[in-house]
Amino acid sequence: MTRGQFLATLAIAPFARGTSPGIDAQRLRRRLEELSVHGRPDGGTFADGVSRVAFSDADIAGRALVMRWMREARLDPRIDAAGNIFGRRAGTDSKLEPVLFGSHIDSVPNGGNFDGDLGVLAALEAIETLNATAATTKRPLEVVVWSNEEGVAFNNGIYGSRAVAGLLDPGELDQVWNGVVKRDAIRKIGGAPDRIETARRAPGSFHAYLELHIEQGGTLERAGTPIGVVEGIVAIDRYDVDIRGFANHAGTTPMPERKDALLAAAELTVAVNEIVRGEPGRQVGTVGHLEVSPNAPNVIAGNAKLTVELRDLSGEKIAKLGDAIGQRARKIATATQTSLEMRRASHHDSAIADPALQSAIEQAAARLNFKTQRLPSGAGHDAQSMAHLGRMAMIFVPSVAGISHSPKELTHWEDCANGAVVLLETVRALAQTA
Amino acid sequence: MTRGQFLATLAIAPFARGTSPGIDAQRLRRRLEELSVHGRPDGGTFADGVSRVAFSDADIAGRALVMRWMREARLDPRIDAAGNIFGRRAGTDSKLEPVLFGSHIDSVPNGGNFDGDLGVLAALEAIETLNATAATTKRPLEVVVWSNEEGVAFNNGIYGSRAVAGLLDPGELDQVWNGVVKRDAIRKIGGAPDRIETARRAPGSFHAYLELHIEQGGTLERAGTPIGVVEGIVAIDRYDVDIRGFANHAGTTPMPERKDALLAAAELTVAVNEIVRGEPGRQVGTVGHLEVSPNAPNVIAGNAKLTVELRDLSGEKIAKLGDAIGQRARKIATATQTSLEMRRASHHDSAIADPALQSAIEQAAARLNFKTQRLPSGAGHDAQSMAHLGRMAMIFVPSVAGISHSPKELTHWEDCANGAVVLLETVRALAQTA
Repeated sequence: MTRGQFLATLAIAPFARGTSPGIDAQRLRRRLEELSVHGRPDGGTFADGVSRVAFSDADIAGRALVMRWMREARLDPRIDAAGNIFGRRAGTDSKLEPVLFGSHIDSVPNGGNFDGDLGVLAALEAIETLNATAATTKRPLEVVVWSNEEGVAFNNGIYGSRAVAGLLDPGELDQVWNGVVKRDAIRKIGGAPDRIETARRAPGSFHAYLELHIEQGGTLERAGTPIGVVEGIVAIDRYDVDIRGFANHAGTTPMPERKDALLAAAELTVAVNEIVRGEPGRQVGTVGHLEVSPNAPNVIAGNAKLTVELRDLSGEKIAKLGDAIGQRARKIATATQTSLEMRRASHHDSAIADPALQSAIEQAAARLNFKTQRLPSGAGHDAQSMAHLGRMAMIFVPSVAGISHSPKELTHWEDCANGAVVLLETVRALAQTA
Repeated sequence: MTRGQFLATLAIAPFARGTSPGIDAQRLRRRLEELSVHGRPDGGTFADGVSRVAFSDADIAGRALVMRWMREARLDPRIDAAGNIFGRRAGTDSKLEPVLFGSHIDSVPNGGNFDGDLGVLAALEAIETLNATAATTKRPLEVVVWSNEEGVAFNNGIYGSRAVAGLLDPGELDQVWNGVVKRDAIRKIGGAPDRIETARRAPGSFHAYLELHIEQGGTLERAGTPIGVVEGIVAIDRYDVDIRGFANHAGTTPMPERKDALLAAAELTVAVNEIVRGEPGRQVGTVGHLEVSPNAPNVIAGNAKLTVELRDLSGEKIAKLGDAIGQRARKIATATQTSLEMRRASHHDSAIADPALQSAIEQAAARLNFKTQRLPSGAGHDAQSMAHLGRMAMIFVPSVAGISHSPKELTHWEDCANGAVVLLETVRALAQTA
């Protein structure tokens, strides 16, 4: 057991050499369990995961609980016009920009209890630990709970932090989802959609943005590394592919006469995998959605729609992969006598973590004797919005078997606590520095 | 224009050399158009096709209209216990077994106006033509309108003729579809499910069974051949494949760690096409149905289900193809780290058309100066039930572009009439012979 791990297992551990306070690992666990009740399936347990979709009653109840804990930590929470929750702890120099850190508590349907929740509750734990020892920091500290990170509601993710970064789409507040207008949903959680502009923060209005999050992939667990240092959040290109063949009788249409849209879709799916794996690197490519029409065993498919999603830290790399897939798609269309349309439906730039902040995390972890490893984030996070306003970095902790967005999502309590002490140590170091 | 084609275009054409009466092509067309009204989409025309699913109100109305025409042709229709309609025209030797011929008038949803209807109305046309010239035949003639050939209702095809051949499944009459029990559906069309056994006919109880039908494939049209002589109805094997991978985040799961059920399904779909086309012959293989779960662009598919359907006149050949596909499936499962279960869900034997009857059709067509071509039927037909009781054969006419089970299904009026005169000529020849 390293010193950091030892500290993490102690309740309100004493300062070690005056530099690295431990956190209350038992309280962190208890709060993760208490928060998990809001959105838990009827009759379920912690292991049954959570459905705490943004703007739902469960989300509102979870936010109320977190705000109660913020008040207990003397953070005096306020809800901005977009529905994000902020709480501030004063520094000794009120002219300095704060260190901002936090995450989100909304979930996907049938999600897990660690995605987002850990980053919020670890942030509170950092404040509580400083409070318990009456420690001061030079810079103010600011904890944030972002609204609707997952974007299940309104099919449009990372909403709250985008509002703060001034990245909302035109007309976004008039979106309708499940019969509810987004403006009304924002009001429901205490926001003020009619003055949404007031939620924006100026570039440079924080010293650094930090976020602790579960990895949601299996890299750290496989490597046995307790702390991941995120190099950046990947760029994402999504393509919609529409294949038109001709629906015909599966018994009476000879093989050479067919215009089989499903066969074309299958060949393209295989090609995406080949092309993405065909060169070195950590890029990923996924066909996750495929719709077939008429989708009957005895009818040759007349139509197929599928999505191709490509991710890498390099936007240029996935653009090239997209081109290569497009070229292959045209060959497949010719060979299968189908017509095929492939268009880029969305593009998200990558967000690179600040190198100095990455080093700050590594140094904090080193002081606590944690091994670290740099890795990209394949998933999107609120940190990518904050990259538009200033420096950001993220701390990852291992996800068992890389599972996420599932009730089976699991990060061991010890790893949760490890992440929290590294967050605290990094925040403390950044907040001491001018 | 051949002599047969010429005769087919005349209304009640005179006997030519006393052997080959023409049929009333105008009346055949008019009746196809009149029957098409029952099940036509609201506000539609003939070109909009028909939805005359068995046991529906449209089916009942269509049956009533056909029975009216049968009475006009002095066929005195009777409904058997299974709901099939039979009408008999006496021969000069009442001890001889009849020549049985007909088809069905039920359709798939959004089907066409020729599949089945042509065979029934051409059979009536044959009787009308004999009546008009007061021609006698040695053998009795019997026209049949089979119930629920398509099997859309109760997902279980070729029902009426299976009842006659004693091929119903145990408990089949207790099937429930759309909230209706099959017994009640049979009563609705005038059948008597409680004495369904009385619908059975003895082996050898007909001299021959003939059925005129549209090809539903493009072979005849491409070859420019007006009359097809069916060699047999193909055997069909259907396999259900269930692939279990692991649903995971499309951004955070490295390519080598994935257990992508959709990728496995795509590789199998490509393999089915390769294996089926990999050897000479007219066999066909189709993946027409594919379901993906959770089917989201940003989630690696955890589960995929698909069907593989194989058809050929040789049941042995498709059994071997199924084995080869199964072997490939196991390799794909290993390579994609998925588990894959493939099981044969159904098997239908092939039904071989009687060689002497095939020759009789060819000779009749030759007398009328029609070119013919032998071909397999890739689709199922009531004739395959009749093959269990005696000799059967089928006459095919061209389907434009091979389209069927679609409002775009089309057989030119001239081809309809050509088929009808060949049917009449064949029936006449078979009924004269002892």
